[in-house]
Amino acid sequence: MPVAQIFMIKGRTEEQRKAVIEKVTAAISEAVEIPKESVRVWIQEVPSTDWGVAGQTAKDLGR
Amino acid sequence: MPVAQIFMIKGRTEEQRKAVIEKVTAAISEAVEIPKESVRVWIQEVPSTDWGVAGQTAKDLGR
Amino acid sequence: MPVAQIFMIKGRTEEQRKAVIEKVTAAISEAVEIPKESVRVWIQEVPSTDWGVAGQTAKDLGR
Amino acid sequence: MPVAQIFMIKGRTEEQRKAVIEKVTAAISEAVEIPKESVRVWIQEVPSTDWGVAGQTAKDLGR
Amino acid sequence: MPVAQIFMIKGRTEEQRKAVIEKVTAAISEAVEIPKESVRVWIQEVPSTDWGVAGQTAKDLGR
Amino acid sequence: MPVAQIFMIKGRTEEQRKAVIEKVTAAISEAVEIPKESVRVWIQEVPSTDWGVAGQTAKDLGR
Repeated sequence: MPVAQIFMIKGRTEEQRKAVIEKVTAAISEAVEIPKESVRVWIQEVPSTDWGVAGQTAKDLGR
Repeated sequence: MPVAQIFMIKGRTEEQRKAVIEKVTAAISEAVEIPKESVRVWIQEVPSTDWGVAGQTAKDLGR
Repeated sequence: MPVAQIFMIKGRTEEQRKAVIEKVTAAISEAVEIPKESVRVWIQEVPSTDWGVAGQTAKDLGR
Repeated sequence: MPVAQIFMIKGRTEEQRKAVIEKVTAAISEAVEIPKESVRVWIQEVPSTDWGVAGQTAKDLGR
Repeated sequence: MPVAQIFMIKGRTEEQRKAVIEKVTAAISEAVEIPKESVRVWIQEVPSTDWGVAGQTAKDLGR
Repeated sequence: MPVAQIFMIKGRTEEQRKAVIEKVTAAISEAVEIPKESVRVWIQEVPSTDWGVAGQTAKDLGR
């Protein structure tokens, strides 16, 4: 029953986030040979003001 | 000083989330025999579009 | 399908950690009125050298 | 720069955990169309004594 | 490549959150002697209704 | 009462991890102008076999 938490900068489309859930579930299912039914995945979007790379916000870095 | 993070699909009422905080705090306090004052709990709500079960979003599963 | 992650300083007995799982599951189940089957809980123990309160390690604080 | 944290019951082989890292990275890279270089993934293994399903430990459930 | 996740009650200004990212990045960089470029930090704000201290919400405690 | 979780590849000395706790606590305290007593920090070390950069383990990358 693996669980994946994905953190991303806010702004991806619903379609992309759906693809993340679908593909990450399949990836884990294959890697550890368990049915997809056992896998949980959720995404936590973080605003670009609250995500820091090298001490700067993603917003200030223009992402 | 245990800390609990609770992840749930968005949509529970404020009253229910308050009950989660109250009851989970009491549960941990009893289980490890420490005062409730030492326990921290927070809830992170995840939109149904971003929560995946078996590779499908909770939204698509109608939850 | 709520998921709880509990962080605690390493050192509780297996019996106590089992009680945490049992009681936190029941607490969430009651608070949001869902069957216990839908609840996942796991504990992550952190060594006292790696847990900080007010900038000091729990080890140095004698916990 | 998405980051994935994967939680699993302890016990998978190093080969399987490596496959998780490889496949989850590829999955996220494809889903949001970014180079694999931007993706970070780590696994946190949880002992079966500390992982609860429906209020019982995975150990007691024989997993 | 250390990663820091900071959880705080919602309500700090963007300026304060930016300072958190800047200062925590510098702190980790100094402590483990790596360039700031290798550090990732993000903040997750939690509404005061969803943050519990001693079993009460931060909102009820007037924070 | 901010809480910081720091994830790092396993292998830093106890002295370095202590410095992380001390400095990150001070950093948050200054950034949001609260006493250090209100800050909690913990470190979660991840084995190099379980940490992935660009789809490869840190171990395979020689880190």
